Amino acid sequence: MNVTIIGLGLIGGSIAKDLKKSGFSTKLIGVDNNEAHAQKALEIKIVDEVLPLEEGVKRADLVVIAIPVDKIKSIIATVLDNASSGTTVTDMGSTKKEIVELIADHPRRKNYVPAHPMSGTENSGPTAALEGLFAGKIAIICNQEHSGPQHLALIEKMFQALGMNIAYMSADEQDHSTAFISHLPHAAAYALANAVQAKEDRSIIFDLASGGFRSTVRLAKSTPTMWGPIFQQNKEYILESLEVYIKHLQEFKDSIENDEDKMYSLMDNATKIRSVLDGKNPSLIKNEEKIVKFYTK
Amino acid sequence: MNVTIIGLGLIGGSIAKDLKKSGFSTKLIGVDNNEAHAQKALEIKIVDEVLPLEEGVKRADLVVIAIPVDKIKSIIATVLDNASSGTTVTDMGSTKKEIVELIADHPRRKNYVPAHPMSGTENSGPTAALEGLFAGKIAIICNQEHSGPQHLALIEKMFQALGMNIAYMSADEQDHSTAFISHLPHAAAYALANAVQAKEDRSIIFDLASGGFRSTVRLAKSTPTMWGPIFQQNKEYILESLEVYIKHLQEFKDSIENDEDKMYSLMDNATKIRSVLDGKNPSLIKNEEKIVKFYTK
Repeated sequence: MNVTIIGLGLIGGSIAKDLKKSGFSTKLIGVDNNEAHAQKALEIKIVDEVLPLEEGVKRADLVVIAIPVDKIKSIIATVLDNASSGTTVTDMGSTKKEIVELIADHPRRKNYVPAHPMSGTENSGPTAALEGLFAGKIAIICNQEHSGPQHLALIEKMFQALGMNIAYMSADEQDHSTAFISHLPHAAAYALANAVQAKEDRSIIFDLASGGFRSTVRLAKSTPTMWGPIFQQNKEYILESLEVYIKHLQEFKDSIENDEDKMYSLMDNATKIRSVLDGKNPSLIKNEEKIVKFYTK
Repeated sequence: MNVTIIGLGLIGGSIAKDLKKSGFSTKLIGVDNNEAHAQKALEIKIVDEVLPLEEGVKRADLVVIAIPVDKIKSIIATVLDNASSGTTVTDMGSTKKEIVELIADHPRRKNYVPAHPMSGTENSGPTAALEGLFAGKIAIICNQEHSGPQHLALIEKMFQALGMNIAYMSADEQDHSTAFISHLPHAAAYALANAVQAKEDRSIIFDLASGGFRSTVRLAKSTPTMWGPIFQQNKEYILESLEVYIKHLQEFKDSIENDEDKMYSLMDNATKIRSVLDGKNPSLIKNEEKIVKFYTK
C-alpha cells in the first residue's frame, strides 16, 4: 500500500517509521514544503520518495496529513480534490472542529477520517522522529459516522499498526477534552516559563532547576508554529480552560494566604490525580485487547 | 563517623544509602517517630540502628534532619540542645528563613549548617529512597558565615559524597529563588490537577493523558504533609510567585483572545527556557570540577 505523508516532522516522521517497520506500508511517499526537511527525510530513509503535494496525493492509497492545524485547513480541500474515490485521507491535528466544518460539504468527505493521536515530544523536525512514539497511547477518531466504513476501517488498522488504542468522540468533545488535558498544560507551561524568566536570572534558573521544574516547563520548549494555531483554532475551549485554571490557582493562593485547612483540602483533592493516572496503564495492554471507547452519546 | 538521620523518608533514606555506599558514614543511626517507617528502614538496611531523638543526637558526629519543614521547626532547638560541641547539625528543608531565625541565638548556632538539596521525586517513605538521587544536582547552603568552618567543611564534604554541586546564598535569597523555581511549579501542578478534575471525568483524563499532561501534573502527586508546611513557611514569596504566574497566565489568555502577534511573542519568549535548561548540564560535570557559586552579594 502506498502511504503519502504530508509533513515530515516529529509526528509524520514517527508514523512513517512505524508504518514501514510494521509492514503496513510498502511504499512511503513524503510531501513537505520545507525542502531541507524533505531532503533530510529521504537521507535518513523515513520516506522512499518525495513528491509535490498533488502528485503525492494522486499516487496514494492513504494520505496522512501531519502539519500544523492552520496548514491543515489551508490544504485539506486540495488534498480531497486530488484524492481518487478509493483514497483514504486522515489528519493528525490536535484540533478537529474547524477542520471538519471546513470540508463538511466536500464531495469526498466520506474519504476523510479526522483523527488525533495523543502523543508527541517537545522536539520537532524529521530528526526528532521516533520509533514507537505512539505505542500504548490513545488515538481519537472524530465523527466516525461521517466517514465511509472502508476508510474508517483503514484508519483503525493504521492506528493498530502504530500500537494505539482508539477512542471515538465528536469533534466538539475532542476539542473540549484536549483543551483541558493537552492544550491547557502547554499554555500553563509557556506562562510558567515566562513568569520564572521574568523574576530569576538565567544562571540561577539553570543551577536550581531540579527534576520538578524541568518536567513542568518541558512543554514550554514546544514550537510556537505548531501550538499557536492550536490555541487559535481551539480558542473558545482554551480560553475556558485557562479561566478555570486561573480560578483554581487564585483559590489555592487565597487558601495559602488565609485558610490553611482549605489549602490542605485542595491539595488532598489534587493528589487524587495519582489514582487517576496510575490506574491500569493502556501501554501495558496488548494490542489485541485494545481499549475501544465510544464517548459520543 | 556516626551519622544520625532524623526522618527516614525519601530524602533521609536516599541520603543514608549514598553516605553508606560512599564510605562517608561508618555507622548510620535512624530516628523516626513513625514506628512503621523506622522498622521498614531497619529491615531494608537503610540504617544500622534506630534510636529515640535525644539519644540519636547524642551519639552522632553529624545529624541530618530530613523531615517536613514544620517538624524541623518543632525539633531543631532540641537537636541543638542535645548536640555536643563537636557535633555538626544540618537540615534538608526546602525553606530556610524561618528555621534560621528560630535558632539565631542558640548557643550551638555555629554547629548548624542550613541546607537544601534540590532533588526529589513525587514519592515518599523509606521504600521511596533511591541511590544516586542527588548526583549532579545542586545543594544550597545558606548563611555560611554563621556556621563554624569545621561544620561547614563537613557538610560540603557530605554533599560531595552525594555527588552534588554546591551553591551558597542567604536564607532569604534561597527562599525567594526556590519559591519561583520549585514551590511555584508544585502549586501550579496542584491547581492544574484540580482544574482538570473539576471539568473532565476520570475515565477521559486517564485515557487521554499523554506524556505532556503526565509530566505537568506529576508534582501534584506530592504529599501535602511535606508541601503544605513549605507553602506556609514561605508564604510571602510563594504568594508573590503565584501572583506573577497568574498575571502571566492572564496576559497569555488575553493574547490568545485578542492579539495573535503578542501570543506568538510570548510563546517565543517562553521557548527561551530551552536554552536556559539545555546549557552545560551539571550532572555531566565530574565532582572534582564541581561548580561552587556564591550568590550572596
